[in-house]
Amino acid sequence: MKPAILVRKLEELPIYASPLVDFIRLGLQHRALPLTSGQPAPEALPLEDLARLAPEALRSRGRKALLYGSNRGLGELRRALTEWQVRSGVLPEGLGDEEVMLTLGSQYAFDLICQGLIRRGDEVACDAPCYPDTWCTALRRGASVLPLPVDEEGLDPDHLEALLAGGHRPVLVYTVLHYQNPCGCSLSPSRQRRLLELAETYDFLVVLDDPYRMLALDGPPPCGSDRFPRLGWDTGRLLYLGSLSKVLAPGVRLGWLAGHRELVAGLAKLQEMSLISLPALDGLIVLEYLLSEGMTGQLSRMVRFLKERRDVLAEGLRARCLPLGCTLRVPSGGCFLRLELPDLPATPLARELAERHGVATVPEAAFWPPSQTPAPDRFLRLSFSWCTPEELAEAAERIARALEGRPR
Amino acid sequence: MKPAILVRKLEELPIYASPLVDFIRLGLQHRALPLTSGQPAPEALPLEDLARLAPEALRSRGRKALLYGSNRGLGELRRALTEWQVRSGVLPEGLGDEEVMLTLGSQYAFDLICQGLIRRGDEVACDAPCYPDTWCTALRRGASVLPLPVDEEGLDPDHLEALLAGGHRPVLVYTVLHYQNPCGCSLSPSRQRRLLELAETYDFLVVLDDPYRMLALDGPPPCGSDRFPRLGWDTGRLLYLGSLSKVLAPGVRLGWLAGHRELVAGLAKLQEMSLISLPALDGLIVLEYLLSEGMTGQLSRMVRFLKERRDVLAEGLRARCLPLGCTLRVPSGGCFLRLELPDLPATPLARELAERHGVATVPEAAFWPPSQTPAPDRFLRLSFSWCTPEELAEAAERIARALEGRPR
Repeated sequence: MKPAILVRKLEELPIYASPLVDFIRLGLQHRALPLTSGQPAPEALPLEDLARLAPEALRSRGRKALLYGSNRGLGELRRALTEWQVRSGVLPEGLGDEEVMLTLGSQYAFDLICQGLIRRGDEVACDAPCYPDTWCTALRRGASVLPLPVDEEGLDPDHLEALLAGGHRPVLVYTVLHYQNPCGCSLSPSRQRRLLELAETYDFLVVLDDPYRMLALDGPPPCGSDRFPRLGWDTGRLLYLGSLSKVLAPGVRLGWLAGHRELVAGLAKLQEMSLISLPALDGLIVLEYLLSEGMTGQLSRMVRFLKERRDVLAEGLRARCLPLGCTLRVPSGGCFLRLELPDLPATPLARELAERHGVATVPEAAFWPPSQTPAPDRFLRLSFSWCTPEELAEAAERIARALEGRPR
Repeated sequence: MKPAILVRKLEELPIYASPLVDFIRLGLQHRALPLTSGQPAPEALPLEDLARLAPEALRSRGRKALLYGSNRGLGELRRALTEWQVRSGVLPEGLGDEEVMLTLGSQYAFDLICQGLIRRGDEVACDAPCYPDTWCTALRRGASVLPLPVDEEGLDPDHLEALLAGGHRPVLVYTVLHYQNPCGCSLSPSRQRRLLELAETYDFLVVLDDPYRMLALDGPPPCGSDRFPRLGWDTGRLLYLGSLSKVLAPGVRLGWLAGHRELVAGLAKLQEMSLISLPALDGLIVLEYLLSEGMTGQLSRMVRFLKERRDVLAEGLRARCLPLGCTLRVPSGGCFLRLELPDLPATPLARELAERHGVATVPEAAFWPPSQTPAPDRFLRLSFSWCTPEELAEAAERIARALEGRPR
């Protein structure tokens, strides 16, 4: 029998379930083609390179790195990642060493930010629809969540301003800068400026999450010249998050956080108190990889990989679903297509697709925080990062058949 | 200029500084012999083995493990670690797969427990003196800390019972099971039983942290036959924490948590929400190491390494400091000696030793939570895991000289 305290504590566990997981699970149950996950398929990861470089990685720097390390991550790795991001035009030139820390992936970075900066009852505003882990984390850390609807140019500053004028006072505004999950949109330069102006006027911090930026499928990645990070850097209002999950390997838990040096120092201290230091072997091997291979080759392989898949899926859907009244939103980067439906809501179709047609997708409603009731449910998010081109063509066909079979 | 919100948020950051760090830093400043840290020196770590095994580790299992993984850690690694701990008599035979999860080291495991189980105002009781990160974590997660004095047999259940009878109601009692930091004591079997009885009567959970158990320097490691974990396993009141930090490498952030399967499931879910999954490369390489080398060789090397150093330091102190009125507490395992002083308090001596004699030590007071004022300050904690035998002999000599030079 469970002791009373265990029963009580289990009830109190601050768990917020992501509705996205339900659709991943449903797909697994029915052995459906998984158009659900944002992670790249294993064949896109540089496994052999990492394996080959690992011994030298450990031998050259392991003696020190196998000890407890810095709370901001291995110094050489931090510098290598920062330099790469500066060269790529993401982080500004002249960024100080103290303005960047490594974290255990950018999901953990956002959790760390929430742990540090949220007090019970604070408001956190975030993209809506949005990757559920964001608002689950904000809720779990005691915030209430304010949804900020996004359109083709990202979050709408007018909507945010109306909320602010109406008395809302978010401490953080979270947005995905490029190729947003699930919408595929990027925050336009003019909206970036507006967001920063609002941050000044209404005194909030902006978390820019940017895991997909390097996955630009139709040209060079957007760079920083007139972009938000550079523009806003000196205001002390930005927290910029980057990650290797989508470009190197999801299981290598390495991200970075850039921001005002005092805030970075505080968050690094929190990271240290929670987990002492970052995992040594992941860091050592990634550093060796960066120094000997660089990221250019892997990035162009990943981009080719994703572009081929996006195009196959888009073509299939265009040919088969547009005639059925759907609208297709094809992003210029990232991992996700949106198929907007003529008959709403999307959730029953997503269930039917998984259960009867063997295609797992996620409906829009799964991306809205619980504060939005009823949640808009206009599209299916279709990930093209996992399945083979053949599977994606087949998935498009099956989606069309499911739509054809539905009562209109 | 910093925006108002940043100024406010920086002030609010829930940082609790460990006083131990001050003494590590003081030692570094004065280039003192570091008898401050509990981590093994680099030459005791199996760097070459890990480097040699890394390519096979990645090639054999990397395809799957480089993706996002299970929230309880790589299944094969979890099973390999559990089987090793069962074979060693630490975890009970017949332990279910669902009763164990991997975590990012045991410091993170304790933080996770506090995040999940503490609500603001709860009490957490812990060994006193105690490794400061324990009570810093409890404080940071909103608890007040109740110190439980330890003696040669670990925490004193009579003292705990008096506190309970007096109305204190800790939700967690934290204790280090073997070779406690900083005292070197182990919780005796009879006290283990008393603690469990009190947990039943007063309805609390017990966190048994056990990172040093395998570092038994005078015989085989204590095993489970009449020990607490086995005794208490079925009560659902135990959370047992193990770690590879002291036996394999501190930088490899791998620990494990065993307990009631529902609580393990909840904590694993929290771990997932915070950091998605554990770092892949650390896990893969450690798994390969466990499967191909096992832990026996590394453990006996580590034990020989520590025993030689402990004996050199103890001998030096015995010869030079006992005649000056000190008492020496030599532990049968772990990394720390205690030198009890004839003239109190210990803190000024620790400062003088670092600044004027080039020996960094930590005084007892640094290990007491801030709720204990004034803190007892009767001994210096001397770590023997880092310095060479020659340095340890020299350190003993310098400590003696410092004592001789003090006004009596």
